[in-house]
Amino acid sequence: MSKEITSEEIQNILEQMGEKALTASRALALLSPDDKNKCLLQMADAIEDSAKEIKTANKKDLKAGKAKGLSNAMLDRLELTDERIEAMAEGLRTVASLDDPVGKKLSSIVRPNGIKIDKVSVPIGVIGIIFESRPNVTVDAAGLCLKAGNAVILRGGSEAINSNLVLAHCLNRAGVIAGLPDGAVQLIPVVDRRAVGVMVKMDQYIDLIIPRGGEGLIRAVVEQSTIPVIKHYKGVCHLYVDADADIDMAVKITENGKCQRPGVCNALETLLVSEAIADKFIPPFVTSMCKNKVELRGDDAFCKLVPTAKFASEEDFYTEYIDLIFSVKIVPDLSAAIEHINHYGSHHSDAIITDNPKNAENFLRGVDSSTVYHNASTRFTDGFEFGMGAEIGISTDKLHARGPMGLVELTSYKYIVYGTGQVRE
Amino acid sequence: MSKEITSEEIQNILEQMGEKALTASRALALLSPDDKNKCLLQMADAIEDSAKEIKTANKKDLKAGKAKGLSNAMLDRLELTDERIEAMAEGLRTVASLDDPVGKKLSSIVRPNGIKIDKVSVPIGVIGIIFESRPNVTVDAAGLCLKAGNAVILRGGSEAINSNLVLAHCLNRAGVIAGLPDGAVQLIPVVDRRAVGVMVKMDQYIDLIIPRGGEGLIRAVVEQSTIPVIKHYKGVCHLYVDADADIDMAVKITENGKCQRPGVCNALETLLVSEAIADKFIPPFVTSMCKNKVELRGDDAFCKLVPTAKFASEEDFYTEYIDLIFSVKIVPDLSAAIEHINHYGSHHSDAIITDNPKNAENFLRGVDSSTVYHNASTRFTDGFEFGMGAEIGISTDKLHARGPMGLVELTSYKYIVYGTGQVRE
Repeated sequence: MSKEITSEEIQNILEQMGEKALTASRALALLSPDDKNKCLLQMADAIEDSAKEIKTANKKDLKAGKAKGLSNAMLDRLELTDERIEAMAEGLRTVASLDDPVGKKLSSIVRPNGIKIDKVSVPIGVIGIIFESRPNVTVDAAGLCLKAGNAVILRGGSEAINSNLVLAHCLNRAGVIAGLPDGAVQLIPVVDRRAVGVMVKMDQYIDLIIPRGGEGLIRAVVEQSTIPVIKHYKGVCHLYVDADADIDMAVKITENGKCQRPGVCNALETLLVSEAIADKFIPPFVTSMCKNKVELRGDDAFCKLVPTAKFASEEDFYTEYIDLIFSVKIVPDLSAAIEHINHYGSHHSDAIITDNPKNAENFLRGVDSSTVYHNASTRFTDGFEFGMGAEIGISTDKLHARGPMGLVELTSYKYIVYGTGQVRE
Repeated sequence: MSKEITSEEIQNILEQMGEKALTASRALALLSPDDKNKCLLQMADAIEDSAKEIKTANKKDLKAGKAKGLSNAMLDRLELTDERIEAMAEGLRTVASLDDPVGKKLSSIVRPNGIKIDKVSVPIGVIGIIFESRPNVTVDAAGLCLKAGNAVILRGGSEAINSNLVLAHCLNRAGVIAGLPDGAVQLIPVVDRRAVGVMVKMDQYIDLIIPRGGEGLIRAVVEQSTIPVIKHYKGVCHLYVDADADIDMAVKITENGKCQRPGVCNALETLLVSEAIADKFIPPFVTSMCKNKVELRGDDAFCKLVPTAKFASEEDFYTEYIDLIFSVKIVPDLSAAIEHINHYGSHHSDAIITDNPKNAENFLRGVDSSTVYHNASTRFTDGFEFGMGAEIGISTDKLHARGPMGLVELTSYKYIVYGTGQVRE
């Protein structure tokens, strides 16, 4: 990028990509499950065959990343080793083996006038994925979109641009060999940030935008997009230990939710404890947290019981730490817990631990989140754990897809009406 | 409106309405079907009991409309007679009698680790409806949203502001009497256009925007909104008369699609005729159109066959006339027809007339529209005709709802996970 690219050039590049994707999507929509699977397997082979090329491009990104002073954690996420390249290829083969989500008859009705109305699943069309860092998203997301019959336009992070370009090119080329029109998989080659602004307004070509990354990126996309966006900003997940909780279970599930993998969106961030059970629950809970080196930030009542805890600010209860830090609050009852979650939460995943079925029922109905749990860990909010076979993301929105999104959520539907000459009276 | 309202005042008014709606929606989501139906019946009675008040407000609107020089057609749509008030009340009673869309178990799966995952339909939350002209939309839309457990914020046209305010107030008051919190039905009292801009950015309160009106209004909403929007811009519906069509059926369905009610979105705007059947089809077709006083605008080939026809411009093929004007084009074959529809159409409703099952199949798969027809009139694209019992609108989008939207499309879902202490390994 020696010379600055103009806005008009960006617009032109993206318009061309959009048109190509739209054309490719029409052809993709007509492919049989076998045809699509052949493409996916061809792509898996192509990834393996291009391992050398991929690693060369990846080395460029790593070198630039080091020069830019990326953290070791970031560099690790960026690196493509032989094992990771192999894993991407295997991922495509797994996707090929899944049930095809397109062409399913979702409902069928014959009306009194004799017309038969079938509701049938179809691809969405063109999907735009905006993501940061890990280059494997290029392959994973493209594979899932293609399996559901969609063309995909990818926009990756600038740190991985060389790796991403080689990967996308490799997939698209393999698609063409397997019979797809050019353009089923495209990656935006323009690193400039303005490209995202142009992309999310191309509603004449793109049907859905899925942004994956930090809250700032996602908010910017939502603010600008004229295309439907499916997203989750963050995961401020709660566990409520009810007055009638089994203490052992509550401690075990809390530990799992907070400590098993604190850096993910379905990990716990806030614990709510019924004051009726605080005396019994808190000692074993604190022991478990100490063992795991978790920093506790409590409200006044909790800090009175646990003097080593820090005081939690109002802001803490809105915060997704994605770290070994835990907000804790003692609440008077179930309805206070529900109110807290609906107010401070992110509508992602929230759990109640109780042996009282009535309280469980009220919690599960009253908490307005994509996934609610009774006596299980919030860590299960995941497409694979839900038996979807794959996951393209998690939605905390209420339209189209809510909770984990698998292949089914990458489809739309159409109504097909069969008549014998019927007209409207 | 003697003094101009400030942007800050508008913001404050709408923020308060949003908060009220969100609170109301949480209570609404917990109501039983019976509770909701009681509300709807109470509202129906309230509309009847307030007929005098409604007509007084409506007279103000009619007077202002006449002074502003509204057309007679517009004034007619604005007017609320005793019969129309009665019809609104009856509409609410019909909605009460429909099947409740909330709380349905959409799927259920037990995972190998023993957790049971139910996918259950829930209300969306708060729905914003933006509409023009007819005040009955206030009542119809509110009734459907409430039945699906949603709070509603309505924004009507300025010509109907007095009528709409009385209607919304009447519904909300009846809801409160029947046990709803204040705020289940609210109408934006600010006529100023800036209110729409504020409304469509209140994504902290509103989950879905449904705009109903002209293309200009809808495009402005999509451009500004940070809330998901479900819409259709227009209905450029096509009928393709295939080489293997039954001529009588083709003429009859064409006449129905174009002439039975030309002013609606599912009426035909463009006819495509296979050149192989043009000689046989066109004479009876032209006779039928003449009888109905339809102006024909054809491509070169059609105009050669029908010298009385006008020449169609490129623009004509993109146009929704909603009038007795018809674009006609002779096409070489089925794939040219599909290509034309996907390029010029609006993805609303398109039909093929043919006795050839293979051609029908290719058309139904290849045309990328919300509803596709084989040997039936496009005029059936309608929630009632589809057996949904009601219709809140039609979507040409591919996310969440496509085609006619009934009560089911006014719901979302959540995952409810039942465990016995499971944690993630």
